[in-house]
Amino acid sequence: MLTEDQRERLEVVLVSPRNPLNIGAVARAMANFGFGRLTVVAPYAPHWREARSAVGAPELLTHARETATLADAVEQCTLVAGTGTLTYRKPESKVVRLPELPLLIAGELARGVRIALVFGPEKHGLTREDLSYCHVLVEVPTDARQPSMNLGQAVAVCLYELAVRACLSDLSPQETAQKPGAPSGILDLVAGLVEETMRAAGYSPRSMQAANRHDLRLMLRRLALSEPDARRVLGLFRRVLWRLKPKPGIDDKSY
Amino acid sequence: MLTEDQRERLEVVLVSPRNPLNIGAVARAMANFGFGRLTVVAPYAPHWREARSAVGAPELLTHARETATLADAVEQCTLVAGTGTLTYRKPESKVVRLPELPLLIAGELARGVRIALVFGPEKHGLTREDLSYCHVLVEVPTDARQPSMNLGQAVAVCLYELAVRACLSDLSPQETAQKPGAPSGILDLVAGLVEETMRAAGYSPRSMQAANRHDLRLMLRRLALSEPDARRVLGLFRRVLWRLKPKPGIDDKSY
Repeated sequence: MLTEDQRERLEVVLVSPRNPLNIGAVARAMANFGFGRLTVVAPYAPHWREARSAVGAPELLTHARETATLADAVEQCTLVAGTGTLTYRKPESKVVRLPELPLLIAGELARGVRIALVFGPEKHGLTREDLSYCHVLVEVPTDARQPSMNLGQAVAVCLYELAVRACLSDLSPQETAQKPGAPSGILDLVAGLVEETMRAAGYSPRSMQAANRHDLRLMLRRLALSEPDARRVLGLFRRVLWRLKPKPGIDDKSY
Repeated sequence: MLTEDQRERLEVVLVSPRNPLNIGAVARAMANFGFGRLTVVAPYAPHWREARSAVGAPELLTHARETATLADAVEQCTLVAGTGTLTYRKPESKVVRLPELPLLIAGELARGVRIALVFGPEKHGLTREDLSYCHVLVEVPTDARQPSMNLGQAVAVCLYELAVRACLSDLSPQETAQKPGAPSGILDLVAGLVEETMRAAGYSPRSMQAANRHDLRLMLRRLALSEPDARRVLGLFRRVLWRLKPKPGIDDKSY
């Protein structure tokens, strides 16, 4: 079983949920399985905190965070796990089947880091853009004839799996000794700086910028940079950028 | 994974569900995990088949059975598993934690019998009376501070566990060689006949009849009678009853 402290470091993130009843059902499932931290990204209904379906968990909604973007929501997290089925997706990130998630999560939680479990909007689930902020795509193994789950039910199934099976005693000390990765917020800083550098170096034509940004986010998550690594990369790119940018008072032509 | 034929022999039974939206959500979860047989016992709303929440599964509702009693719903089933938490219950039947259910179910399904997974009404779950029709109580391991689950979410969690983990390859031939138990309908016949016999023998005072009936149902399920055993018991009690009852034309006083 997960400890209270480990549960506190797991954040459930809902991206653009439309129906407050579903948000309430998510809060109820979280309370059922002993999780308390909820973040709602760009919710559709302003009064989502008052969902009557949050039976036994209204204070969980009261204390939930609201952020404008997924990047803001997962800024502090070292492992970001998006959820969905593979039926309509060609995954670009690493795929983990839900029954394998507890071992992965337990290993990360044992390192003392923060983790996010991310769920997409009711209609279509997480977009390709959303998934570029995720280190792994967690596949809920549903029937190919009816793969799409109700939001509250998907959260209940995932949290049940984690609450019941994330058993730390299964992990060898070797597995937990690995260095924790860099939090998402630092990866986004790196990505921003690399992009600025590409622009300053005239490397990336304007038409390619969105696609490059997407691929860059995915690549940085695949690399599994540690926080010191990420800070080293930041330092290097800051230096390069400083050299690339025209200095005030010096005529560009003189280069 | 369960085969199509095994999934066909697992029946989801909802006892007196109040909200058609929950019935629809149950149908959706069943379709998500590849189960198709639903029975609704004494539903509150007459138009429950039209629930709009059955996304991707309206035909499952159309083909669902409706029965007046739980006894009718599980008549053909050899293993009846009620669901709930232990927080408000002192269980009278055998208790199985949800993560242990797949092995039990797989063993039964391998014998070719029918199984029912029974869920109680939204407000209070299965009653003591309902549970006397069940061979086991399946405990969903929820947090003691908020044990009560939403109906659709409880069904999703149970079916996920069964769909993902009921793995027949884990069973030794010895375990599956055991004789299948008698279907619930035959146990109810035995119970009815025993009760009639008790009455005819003047054994059971009228005030005790309901309590005796309850205990008898539980006892017959604990015994795990095979179908031939149950038929032998039926034969014996029919004979006893025939001897006990006054014959027409013969004066009672002559005995």
